[in-house]
Amino acid sequence: MRVLKLVVAYDGTGFHGWQRQPGLRTVQGVLEEVLSGVLRETASVQGAGRTDAGVHARGQVATFETAGRLPASAVPPLANRALPADVRVCSAGEVPEGFDARRSARARRYAYRLLDRDDVLLGRIAWHPRGTAPADALTRATAVLEGEHDCSSFRSSGGSETTPCCRVSRATWSRWEGGLQLDIVSNHFLYHMVRSVVGTALETARADDPAGAMRAVLEARDRRRAGVTVPPQGLCLEQVFYPSKESVR
Amino acid sequence: MRVLKLVVAYDGTGFHGWQRQPGLRTVQGVLEEVLSGVLRETASVQGAGRTDAGVHARGQVATFETAGRLPASAVPPLANRALPADVRVCSAGEVPEGFDARRSARARRYAYRLLDRDDVLLGRIAWHPRGTAPADALTRATAVLEGEHDCSSFRSSGGSETTPCCRVSRATWSRWEGGLQLDIVSNHFLYHMVRSVVGTALETARADDPAGAMRAVLEARDRRRAGVTVPPQGLCLEQVFYPSKESVR
Repeated sequence: MRVLKLVVAYDGTGFHGWQRQPGLRTVQGVLEEVLSGVLRETASVQGAGRTDAGVHARGQVATFETAGRLPASAVPPLANRALPADVRVCSAGEVPEGFDARRSARARRYAYRLLDRDDVLLGRIAWHPRGTAPADALTRATAVLEGEHDCSSFRSSGGSETTPCCRVSRATWSRWEGGLQLDIVSNHFLYHMVRSVVGTALETARADDPAGAMRAVLEARDRRRAGVTVPPQGLCLEQVFYPSKESVR
Repeated sequence: MRVLKLVVAYDGTGFHGWQRQPGLRTVQGVLEEVLSGVLRETASVQGAGRTDAGVHARGQVATFETAGRLPASAVPPLANRALPADVRVCSAGEVPEGFDARRSARARRYAYRLLDRDDVLLGRIAWHPRGTAPADALTRATAVLEGEHDCSSFRSSGGSETTPCCRVSRATWSRWEGGLQLDIVSNHFLYHMVRSVVGTALETARADDPAGAMRAVLEARDRRRAGVTVPPQGLCLEQVFYPSKESVR
């Protein structure tokens, strides 16, 4: 069996998240249906990140095994012809046997986009908070997360992760078209972690000592100390990182 | 009768354009229905720009007469509660009798957004051309339009404008989040003019002399000399300008 790796982008607005669920429109469900048609065999797809309802992706990675001989390069055009406009296969490549989009991933990068003001054009892909804070105060708060930490304070109940330890290699804020955005890279994300980090950053950035306030939340390892979980539409899975020897051939 | 002026934003994707049409979902139709409910009288709305199907607005202006006593400031929250998420009333103010969103307008600013690459998140509000050109070459081409000209070369049949003369005060390109965008300000726009200007700019910018190539198209006053009319989703009515004495009170 060959293993193919796809980079997949989607507008999450019209989906009940990534994961297949009977009777609901999900990205995995739509992708499996279309790939099964293209490959003429039942395709079972593994995704690198199980994005929630309303969360977007520009760099989701999905792998599947195939007994067929279709070259990887033929998959994107064939799949995109059959896929709805809100999911696109950006690229495809063959990877070594045993490669798995989820288990082989070493890190993921998410972006969370805020809006400075209501904007009907960007409101599907970003969120407008009632109050915000300067980018440098937000970065002072989230920089505290860089390094290896028990991130239990930012975990919603309902997740299935085994360990609350995350190695966060980046958590910085910058400007995008509509306002500010958080870029966060970690080897591991807990359930609702990014959305909880953003809610907490918006609160702690307004403190006299944003870093100290964030550190207090982190060290408490107590969900009740964190800020609100901000809405899904600002969140986007931008990129998944793999060890280079397992990268696309 | 008092005259109220609204600034209206909408995602044009789900509309058959601005103008009321029986049996079709249009912005004017939705807005009149909601305002009639809010004001408890039949509201007949005049829009500054009759945007086509799929075209967006961040700064459409709409005026209507009302016999009621509702203060202008109450209109946005009441209307937005009843409006669908893809139309928003951004602000409202009372204007002098005789003020008309369309006839009183002195100029309009449109933006046309291009994408550097396919992007499922920005694809509703921008267009990805097969080939593009550097911003400075595009600006050299469109700068030719600045001033007062007969713009017949950029007019599709089907428009209802009386004169083909337009006084273009700005036609420049800059970068936005997803790629390049044209900002064009004119006292008057012909049917499909911006979309035709963009198609022509993309062609003429690749010429050795972008300004000369654009000038040849402009001076021909012949629609057949212009480039393609690019798709509607990249176009957005950003702002409408009025003489200051008629501005919102």
